Amino acid sequence: MKYFNFGAGPSMLPKEVLEKIKEDLPYWKKNMSVMEVGHRTPDFLEIIEKSEYNIRKLLNIPKHYKVLFLTGGARSQFSMIPINFLGNKTTADYIITGLWSKIAHEDGKLFCNANVVVNSEKEDFKFIPKQETWNLSENAAYVHYTDNESIHGVEFDYIPDVKNDIPLVCDMTSSILTKPIDINKYSLIYASAQKNMGIAGLTMVIVDDDKIKNIPMNTPPLYNYKKMIEYKSILNTPPTFSWYVMNLVLEWLINKGGISYCYEKSIEKSKKLYEFIDNSDLFYNEIINAYRSRINVPFHLKKKSLVDKFIFFAETNGMLQIKGHKVMGGIRASLYNAMPVEGVDALIDVMKDFENNY
Amino acid sequence: MKYFNFGAGPSMLPKEVLEKIKEDLPYWKKNMSVMEVGHRTPDFLEIIEKSEYNIRKLLNIPKHYKVLFLTGGARSQFSMIPINFLGNKTTADYIITGLWSKIAHEDGKLFCNANVVVNSEKEDFKFIPKQETWNLSENAAYVHYTDNESIHGVEFDYIPDVKNDIPLVCDMTSSILTKPIDINKYSLIYASAQKNMGIAGLTMVIVDDDKIKNIPMNTPPLYNYKKMIEYKSILNTPPTFSWYVMNLVLEWLINKGGISYCYEKSIEKSKKLYEFIDNSDLFYNEIINAYRSRINVPFHLKKKSLVDKFIFFAETNGMLQIKGHKVMGGIRASLYNAMPVEGVDALIDVMKDFENNY
Repeated sequence: MKYFNFGAGPSMLPKEVLEKIKEDLPYWKKNMSVMEVGHRTPDFLEIIEKSEYNIRKLLNIPKHYKVLFLTGGARSQFSMIPINFLGNKTTADYIITGLWSKIAHEDGKLFCNANVVVNSEKEDFKFIPKQETWNLSENAAYVHYTDNESIHGVEFDYIPDVKNDIPLVCDMTSSILTKPIDINKYSLIYASAQKNMGIAGLTMVIVDDDKIKNIPMNTPPLYNYKKMIEYKSILNTPPTFSWYVMNLVLEWLINKGGISYCYEKSIEKSKKLYEFIDNSDLFYNEIINAYRSRINVPFHLKKKSLVDKFIFFAETNGMLQIKGHKVMGGIRASLYNAMPVEGVDALIDVMKDFENNY
Repeated sequence: MKYFNFGAGPSMLPKEVLEKIKEDLPYWKKNMSVMEVGHRTPDFLEIIEKSEYNIRKLLNIPKHYKVLFLTGGARSQFSMIPINFLGNKTTADYIITGLWSKIAHEDGKLFCNANVVVNSEKEDFKFIPKQETWNLSENAAYVHYTDNESIHGVEFDYIPDVKNDIPLVCDMTSSILTKPIDINKYSLIYASAQKNMGIAGLTMVIVDDDKIKNIPMNTPPLYNYKKMIEYKSILNTPPTFSWYVMNLVLEWLINKGGISYCYEKSIEKSKKLYEFIDNSDLFYNEIINAYRSRINVPFHLKKKSLVDKFIFFAETNGMLQIKGHKVMGGIRASLYNAMPVEGVDALIDVMKDFENNY
């Protein structure tokens, strides 16, 4: 039996990457595993340089943007962004389209007047509200949004249009490297690694450091973008193994064909799955078509009593970590870059089987 | 040829742990690697529970202390401690006995009047100044010290005696799990994992949460001990692989014989090495005997011109990552728990060989 891991994160790694990790044990270079090598040694610095080079190549990042590799997950950015971008301003704009942007707003409130531009919670986050309905501030320190909501399964099909001098800041944790991005539209993009770029421990930040304001004196050094830029992300010992895995995944992505390949495959995979769901008598997805996520596909069963049975049936048949997030219930299939089309085909077969038998 | 890794961190892992990591690839449980498993799944929660159980067992941690596993390395604690322990006070006490406690003090200054209790920098950090010479504040929010200075190679041979109501806070990154600790003397102990407990990415904190003061409103949630206690260290996705490795190392330590074994071996290893150095015509160590670190042994060559030659000779003969820290120069042999006595014997043989030939 073949196994496919639909977990939302930590999530599936490419088979080739797992094989390479195994091959590099116990010795990576000079009779040490990569976990045992000093982070300031030439061998490890090569990983750091290569990973920046690879991410710049994949995302076509303009030269004047800095690329950082930080710790603390995407959650740490919910605090770092206000700390570093508020300056003398007291208001920042938050677009709430699912649980992650809602938590970003909650954390933002610790630091500023976090204005709710729009909030689709009353509509169960089933769509991305059109920009005409938004309440953008005149003079926000920044506008924050979440490109893809991995729990609710909604994804922006456009880039918000904000005033030229207001920094646009985006959480791309679940959608990074699955589509081309016009980096120039953003002042900051962040994404933790454990979905499309590797394993937990590292968070990648792309930042136009000209937009960083006066950072308060009492800012923890690890939460200070300028300090982290100055120290090239290694102010202290970084999670070296996570960094090594990230670089392996980036190299794998480049070899596969880069962003255009990932984008094409993400459309193919999600289209297949949504089409099957829409034509099913048992399964359904409530998200309005234009805003359906290509990456995280939550769905339900018309007979609620069958949910646990389906999860058990799916796992028994090799479809792993398919249980929905606790706030949503139901099922969730995450289709990150490591998931092959074959995995979606297998899932559809299992869903068909289940539908025919129950 | 046998290889021994004397790196100061990231550092040597036990052979058995590396073998187990390799064995667990590509499948750990349920046809997934541990890197691909959700952090809130029962399988991963078992690692979290076991690692806390194991660290409590090894260090004999009293029940009323909380154990946290955080990100950001020990460096993050340099900020978290003042943020969480200052309360209404404005002064904290710092004992400076080497580069790490000096940086802790630098970071502390961002948040408070960081009083220098004592600073042995003028004496090149060659000893731990006696407590009679210290300038403790009457009413400090806490007293911070670094038990073992991994760069300068000095170690406290006692626990500072502070007033009952003043929290004693200690960085034990390089000495944790190498000797018995009377936890009750402390309000907080912290240590990042990549020296004696595994690989980079996780920092263990033992805290008496009754001593935590009113935490400022604008504290990043990941820097808020109370919040991290409430969420049992998983407010967000933790570095799961680092956590898994930490638990493997803790299990290995318990199987080896726990703290008494580690303590005995650390004395045996360091004694052998210092004795050889003290009797050598070529090598020397300048630290006053009573304060010599059992864990990190920096040493020099009387002929400066031979330093690079020795490093090359040592590495060629299997003694890895032995180069001293850039602020100290010379050589440094780190003797963490994973280093067998055999490794020290091998190093001494290499040093003898070199001495006889140059």
